[in-house]
Amino acid sequence: MSLAERLRSGERRALAKAITLIESTRADHREQADALLTALMPATGHALRLGISGVPGVGKSTFIEAFGLLLLSRGHRVAVLTIDPSSTLSGGAILGDKTRMEKLSMDTRAFIRPSPSSGTLGGVAEKTREAMLLCEAAGYDIVIVETVGVGQSETAVAGMTDLYLLLQLPNAGDDLQAIKKGVMELADLVVINKADLDPGAAMRAQAQITSALRLLPAHAASVPRVLQVSALRADGIEALWAALGTLRSDRQASGAWQHKRREQSLAWLWERIQAGLRQAFMGAPGMAQQLAAATAEVRDGRTPASTAARQLLAAFQLRSNS
Amino acid sequence: MSLAERLRSGERRALAKAITLIESTRADHREQADALLTALMPATGHALRLGISGVPGVGKSTFIEAFGLLLLSRGHRVAVLTIDPSSTLSGGAILGDKTRMEKLSMDTRAFIRPSPSSGTLGGVAEKTREAMLLCEAAGYDIVIVETVGVGQSETAVAGMTDLYLLLQLPNAGDDLQAIKKGVMELADLVVINKADLDPGAAMRAQAQITSALRLLPAHAASVPRVLQVSALRADGIEALWAALGTLRSDRQASGAWQHKRREQSLAWLWERIQAGLRQAFMGAPGMAQQLAAATAEVRDGRTPASTAARQLLAAFQLRSNS
Repeated sequence: MSLAERLRSGERRALAKAITLIESTRADHREQADALLTALMPATGHALRLGISGVPGVGKSTFIEAFGLLLLSRGHRVAVLTIDPSSTLSGGAILGDKTRMEKLSMDTRAFIRPSPSSGTLGGVAEKTREAMLLCEAAGYDIVIVETVGVGQSETAVAGMTDLYLLLQLPNAGDDLQAIKKGVMELADLVVINKADLDPGAAMRAQAQITSALRLLPAHAASVPRVLQVSALRADGIEALWAALGTLRSDRQASGAWQHKRREQSLAWLWERIQAGLRQAFMGAPGMAQQLAAATAEVRDGRTPASTAARQLLAAFQLRSNS
Repeated sequence: MSLAERLRSGERRALAKAITLIESTRADHREQADALLTALMPATGHALRLGISGVPGVGKSTFIEAFGLLLLSRGHRVAVLTIDPSSTLSGGAILGDKTRMEKLSMDTRAFIRPSPSSGTLGGVAEKTREAMLLCEAAGYDIVIVETVGVGQSETAVAGMTDLYLLLQLPNAGDDLQAIKKGVMELADLVVINKADLDPGAAMRAQAQITSALRLLPAHAASVPRVLQVSALRADGIEALWAALGTLRSDRQASGAWQHKRREQSLAWLWERIQAGLRQAFMGAPGMAQQLAAATAEVRDGRTPASTAARQLLAAFQLRSNS
């Protein structure tokens, strides 16, 4: 059987191998990966794509474990992917700990894959998008993409998922951080975890976050709901799943769901074209030296930036044509 | 005398002609413009570059008139440039009215130039940056770049000026709009105009905006001051000019001023390179059709976006090399 067939039949090892293939930087692997992805495309797109983020300490692993187990009990198959740009340095901050999501990772109906451990955020995000397609083709009908609050990774995750869940602690001030970073604008639903530890604080956080969400223009049409859960006690997880189901069916009925997917795909296309053009430009013969010289000229105010850019572009096109 | 010499000697018609030259899209004009700009670079960089924005109705023209006249009385020469992306459609919303800044426009020590009336925001911003350099070479030691709140024009203006002034009305809610749009984060100083109309409201607005500014991470190091003025009565304009002077000398002493200029130039360089690469890509023979086909493939979920991007890039490089 081909890798595509084994993957389609739900073989976890084939899925793992296919993800390793798309993560490879070798040109022949890349060609195989493109062929594999294109062959599998008709089998993709049917899953619920769910983004989850929250700062370290919010209880993300415990939450995904409790949530994932509920989904399995409802007959779903769950894949968990991770975007952690810091893993390039640390060797995998999020999933370095093998004891994370212990029950979920032992269940054959779940598939957990750590973040690609090299590349820029753009590159890591691309691999994760492709891994998501592979998981869908392998029959996982719920794909969770999680991230920690590092740089722009939340925006990347929100750009590839249908619904984006923001986990918050019942701390005053935690919500302010999320507003400041612009993450609150991405959220389709906010979940206050560890609500059992201090019910009063959780209530206050719920009210505060709700008012904060009302201020944001991203939510002018409808303000995201704020729910309280305790992942450790598996409290509130069913209500959360019901709320996600309502969001999904409402948006599918209005067409907003499908529209968002199309927009995400086109944005992804352009992001990769821009990245590829930049790479071709930087890699052109002699460009490194010329760019360094132009950068110094511009930095020191000897050449206007627009003139330097035109000269570099002319040199790039001349070399490309020679 | 050459155009460069006439411009350097402060001849306003030469400056106007030079700006028309940089705004031209003809290739030979562009070459002349690049040569002119490069020749003039040593004479640039000494001016105070001041960005000013505010929603329609805030009294921007009245403010710039009062502020500009004060600057002239202090021995300065003032240039006022405008970025108004909407002028492409409207034929110049901001400066369409010839009666704007009547006294300032009649003074020979001032130079007022409307927004380029065609092009994308990126293109308009590039022309304005270049026009700013020309004004500096012509001896204007204060260059004001104003914009209305259209799209991303505020970010473009903040990216080319030393200090960014946000004009606000003494209305509750006006400050919220600015926070929502992200403009409050750009401000180095906030000016409440028309403070004489309702002193109580102006006081409340000052307090509200100050608390709002404290929340923003962009201002973690130091919170921008909020001043009250009445441009119509020329009240508070001198205090504002003193506050700008303090900001300038503090930042020049710390090196932050020079650092910001270098960063702005390098960001401009990269922005133009990216725009040029995109233009070369879009203009490659046959690319329009191929891109349209790929876009449909991706939108309909038949080809992964990353695969489509790689195919388009390969076709682009093949054509460039043929």
